[in-house]
Amino acid sequence: MKPDLSKNKTIGILGGGQLGRMLSSSASKLGFKSHIYDPQKGCPASQVSDLTTVASYEDIKALTNFAKSVDVVTYEFENIPTQALDVIENYVSIYPNRKALLTSQDRLTEKQFLNNIGLNTAPFVNVETDAELKNAINKIGSDSILKTRRFGYDGKGQARLNSKTNLVDILLSFQGQPCILEGLINFDQEISVIGARDQHGSISCYDPGENIHQNGILRTTIVPARINKKIATDAIIITGKILNALDYIGTIGVELFVKDNKLIVNEIAPRVHNSGHWTQNGCVIDQFEQHVRAITGLPLGDGNRHSNVKMTNLLGDDILNLEQLLNARNSAVHLYGKKDIKSDRKMGHVNQLY
Amino acid sequence: MKPDLSKNKTIGILGGGQLGRMLSSSASKLGFKSHIYDPQKGCPASQVSDLTTVASYEDIKALTNFAKSVDVVTYEFENIPTQALDVIENYVSIYPNRKALLTSQDRLTEKQFLNNIGLNTAPFVNVETDAELKNAINKIGSDSILKTRRFGYDGKGQARLNSKTNLVDILLSFQGQPCILEGLINFDQEISVIGARDQHGSISCYDPGENIHQNGILRTTIVPARINKKIATDAIIITGKILNALDYIGTIGVELFVKDNKLIVNEIAPRVHNSGHWTQNGCVIDQFEQHVRAITGLPLGDGNRHSNVKMTNLLGDDILNLEQLLNARNSAVHLYGKKDIKSDRKMGHVNQLY
Repeated sequence: MKPDLSKNKTIGILGGGQLGRMLSSSASKLGFKSHIYDPQKGCPASQVSDLTTVASYEDIKALTNFAKSVDVVTYEFENIPTQALDVIENYVSIYPNRKALLTSQDRLTEKQFLNNIGLNTAPFVNVETDAELKNAINKIGSDSILKTRRFGYDGKGQARLNSKTNLVDILLSFQGQPCILEGLINFDQEISVIGARDQHGSISCYDPGENIHQNGILRTTIVPARINKKIATDAIIITGKILNALDYIGTIGVELFVKDNKLIVNEIAPRVHNSGHWTQNGCVIDQFEQHVRAITGLPLGDGNRHSNVKMTNLLGDDILNLEQLLNARNSAVHLYGKKDIKSDRKMGHVNQLY
Repeated sequence: MKPDLSKNKTIGILGGGQLGRMLSSSASKLGFKSHIYDPQKGCPASQVSDLTTVASYEDIKALTNFAKSVDVVTYEFENIPTQALDVIENYVSIYPNRKALLTSQDRLTEKQFLNNIGLNTAPFVNVETDAELKNAINKIGSDSILKTRRFGYDGKGQARLNSKTNLVDILLSFQGQPCILEGLINFDQEISVIGARDQHGSISCYDPGENIHQNGILRTTIVPARINKKIATDAIIITGKILNALDYIGTIGVELFVKDNKLIVNEIAPRVHNSGHWTQNGCVIDQFEQHVRAITGLPLGDGNRHSNVKMTNLLGDDILNLEQLLNARNSAVHLYGKKDIKSDRKMGHVNQLY
């Protein structure tokens, strides 16, 4: 089912945070309206969109009305309840597809998928009990990370293990959630590729960015990444492979580790991605517009990079330095319209050309 | 009166066309909400803004409520009824100021202002009667243009005269509106400078663009303009002079003729300007964001140009070639969300980097 989208049609977006906000702004550049669905009133995306539905993801009536009012549906986060998607799919197409969502929602499924298409991941073992954790450590080693299979983000739902870790305490803290134990990769670099695939199967990938995390949260992306050309090309080929294997439509974020000149896929995000924000000021077509083009049946745009960019997230109090940020040379500040500053909350980002 | 604008405050915008729409999107990048005031329901800007008031510019109650709901007011067109401004000014600051509006609303006032600050204009004479027109032609010559003093745009309200023109018919067609007769300038180039001035008096100007009009409507802006460096610098100095003389706050468009290596000011627009749309893809900070920064008391951003750009307006049926436009290399398409295609109607524009 291909949506008949022409000018002035409406894109439904599940989730009204900063990603939904920037998707909505990009949709408007191409003449589309947006309808945001979010449980929270006054969410960042609602401020820049034509319509907003404030309702929970369990509200079948609201979901039905939302689905009927739009021409295609997309989302800004991967943990949308299955039931909500079932309701929406009765009326309108959802892009990226369910397979992409199911694959990336669960770290076990995701890693199995990646291995099945011949891509490297960190070693991993499924863990649900005390005994399984002990066996997993025997197999992978104590230098490892226990991660919940679902709902983790920005370093949440993760615990770094070592030889002194009290395993009982750790498992208790995870409250019986299914987990995987991942072998720790002492990577040389973390990079990511933002790719997009349209409804004709054409693919466009941006140059890989190099990511620097702090406390599990993305702090900075530098483009170009400090990697050799072969690694950059390989990372793009891997992204293409993932996009094709998922029959994907839209923008994807693929995080990879570089270790001894080899690539290990860390995780995939079936949506626009924080590490792709640099494209807003480094390219003539950014990751948000690529996503909008793909899901509306339009051809992908030119993803060439015209500048080097350093993207820095503004977390919590960072935005109190706004005056200084606004005065910086070659810098564009992007704020998300969030009222309350919280520690480590993503309030905005800065793209500095260099 | 300086507005106390911090994050998540609201900018009121009079006029909800494409300029209001792009202003609103830029405001959101800096975390501001927008409230659009426009007589027409579903106008382009309302689709991307937090709030919209649909009411006429004579509706004092609606204007009052609008003014009370926002933290600062700006506009996308210069012909706002004086009475509407009077109402709004009781509650909130309007930028650019009244002087800028009054000066640019009337071609006679505008040219007198420009001459008074030492700038060249085409020769002109005020014309209200048959006899005055004859005298004006005697003074300026028959190679001239009769223009209504007010409400002209995109070549409307103008008539090109020559030695064979029937003067009575011409004046009749202007229905007694006050006019000026302008001497025709056989210019070598038409250029424009988009400048901005903030609340501390700092000024930032973009590189001059070269404009190509068709039937009185801007068709293309090329940046850099094909002019020598001295002319480019002079054009920027002239723009600075105008900004200071008007005690201006916001973005301005200054159109100039280049003739025998001299500059003649054609007209000024106290707002973001069609010939500045190239800045969206040629600079890290565009004309819309400069305007938002200026009117909200923030410092101006870095107006450096990182690329050469050709901006082409999409008029009427042009947007039926959308697929081709979207596939063009190095090109960004900007559409305005207008439902109905009309001949010569501005439906969008394309910025092509080169």
